[in-house]
Amino acid sequence: MLTLGFPWGQLVVESVGENVDGVVEGDVVIPHFLADCTECVGCRSKKGNLCSAFPFKISPWMPRDQTSRFKDLRGETIHHFVSVSSFSEYTVLDIAHVVKVDPTVPPNRACLLSCGVSTGVGAAWRTANVEVGSTVVIFGLGSIGLAVAEGARLCGATRIIGVDVISEKFEIGKRFGVTEFVNSKNCGDKSVSQIIIDMTDGGADYCFECVGLASLVQEAYACCRKGWGKTIVLGVDQPGSQLSLSSFEVLHSGKILMGSLFGGLKAKSDIPILLKRYMDKELELDKFVTHEMKFEEINSAFDLLIKGKCLRCVIWMGE
Amino acid sequence: MLTLGFPWGQLVVESVGENVDGVVEGDVVIPHFLADCTECVGCRSKKGNLCSAFPFKISPWMPRDQTSRFKDLRGETIHHFVSVSSFSEYTVLDIAHVVKVDPTVPPNRACLLSCGVSTGVGAAWRTANVEVGSTVVIFGLGSIGLAVAEGARLCGATRIIGVDVISEKFEIGKRFGVTEFVNSKNCGDKSVSQIIIDMTDGGADYCFECVGLASLVQEAYACCRKGWGKTIVLGVDQPGSQLSLSSFEVLHSGKILMGSLFGGLKAKSDIPILLKRYMDKELELDKFVTHEMKFEEINSAFDLLIKGKCLRCVIWMGE
Repeated sequence: MLTLGFPWGQLVVESVGENVDGVVEGDVVIPHFLADCTECVGCRSKKGNLCSAFPFKISPWMPRDQTSRFKDLRGETIHHFVSVSSFSEYTVLDIAHVVKVDPTVPPNRACLLSCGVSTGVGAAWRTANVEVGSTVVIFGLGSIGLAVAEGARLCGATRIIGVDVISEKFEIGKRFGVTEFVNSKNCGDKSVSQIIIDMTDGGADYCFECVGLASLVQEAYACCRKGWGKTIVLGVDQPGSQLSLSSFEVLHSGKILMGSLFGGLKAKSDIPILLKRYMDKELELDKFVTHEMKFEEINSAFDLLIKGKCLRCVIWMGE
Repeated sequence: MLTLGFPWGQLVVESVGENVDGVVEGDVVIPHFLADCTECVGCRSKKGNLCSAFPFKISPWMPRDQTSRFKDLRGETIHHFVSVSSFSEYTVLDIAHVVKVDPTVPPNRACLLSCGVSTGVGAAWRTANVEVGSTVVIFGLGSIGLAVAEGARLCGATRIIGVDVISEKFEIGKRFGVTEFVNSKNCGDKSVSQIIIDMTDGGADYCFECVGLASLVQEAYACCRKGWGKTIVLGVDQPGSQLSLSSFEVLHSGKILMGSLFGGLKAKSDIPILLKRYMDKELELDKFVTHEMKFEEINSAFDLLIKGKCLRCVIWMGE
């Protein structure tokens, strides 16, 4: 186990537990909710990013022994959160949930790769493997959808079509590579997919669902190009929701449906690559940060998030 | 247009229409129901096998001009069938629906690549891209399922698990590379997917649905390995049937769902490759042929097919 201090999403190792290799005191690391133990069949495979040893679950405990390492002043147990628990000055992390990073990367940029931005960028880069010259549709231009746009831009997509219910999102989206926009509330008699199919003369190469509605996944699937169109699901729907597709279309369309958890990234190998691309001025992280706040202001930060007034808000712990 | 004579699935060009390139009188060709015009965006792409110029549909007409080229003795129009119509001594085909082949391949073997066998073999080879050492599950050991097994064997799969309701299918399946068998009627309290997950310590790399039931596609999806398992749909379900998947699982499992029409094969380039592999004694076609009959016996051949008493029955036209 490691004990770590300081900012959300980027931490400095304060001490290292017994039998833990790979980091030493003083290392700069990023915590990640999706484990990368590097040793199990899932982590050793090049085909996916899901650790078999520590599969993802919403758990209040440390992943290896189902215990807590936090207590309050009265000695009562405090729960962990998705193996990261970094809204605190010090935390305890399993080595499967941290990646050592280049300490020269500014912490208020490196921290973005701890979750949301890497999820979107990775979904275009690793899960979908967007190709140069391709056409991409993104349902939902929140932070995740914009990160998909940034990833698609990095991969060389020619057309990046944003779909949202708020037309102002197009102006924001342009900064992330979005080239065209469809307001799904202003489609008249047509469905979004019919409009996209018309715009693209047959459908898009890649469609990303970044909202979390099974009905939108169906629209995304419908507007993928027959023969090879890929629909990539990033949005989290209500528990128990079902996604329904026409059996005929699944068989006859040649389309592909896949999910993307943490953007298909293997944290220990892929986060350092993305950080290097940031330092090389290819991956643009700065534009994601609309606010920076002290930890004391965290409730205001959540208000901004809930009201859709911020993209990413960096929380500084301590000074 | 071409006019062609002789056996089902392999034909000899009798005459060639105006403006038709690529074949001449006397060429040996195989007709294929899925167009390969070689010129449209779909045919030019390396990523799929669906022709955009002549998309697949069940049509009674020639694909290019929606006419018939057949009349009976009284002058009444006779319909075409899926652009092939080869249950006749002579037929007329669009150039997008024929591939020229090596005339030294025996016609009663080459004809197998006109549809079913190529669909199964191609699904493993082209659609799924089965890798050496992988684990494959096949739901339904009919001719298509056995052809998937043959394709998976060719691709170097280590474990090929057949699932069927008839235990005798295992003995037949062994000849096609099936290594293990699950009778889905004898699973007790467990689902097939639970049994497969136990057998494979987490799920199979590739699952093929060759029956045509949405419920089996769901089982196939369930027993794919988290992280990268692919479910490939080959079976044709009832019109209007819906495939339902858990949104949570689609997002969190890293699994991939795809359909395979004509095995993902591009007829004009892939059928000659498969025929060469047959002549090189890699692809084993002989074992698919359980019966050979004259055209006059075609109704008996259909009886065998409906009763599940044959795999492939070659129909000889003429002598």
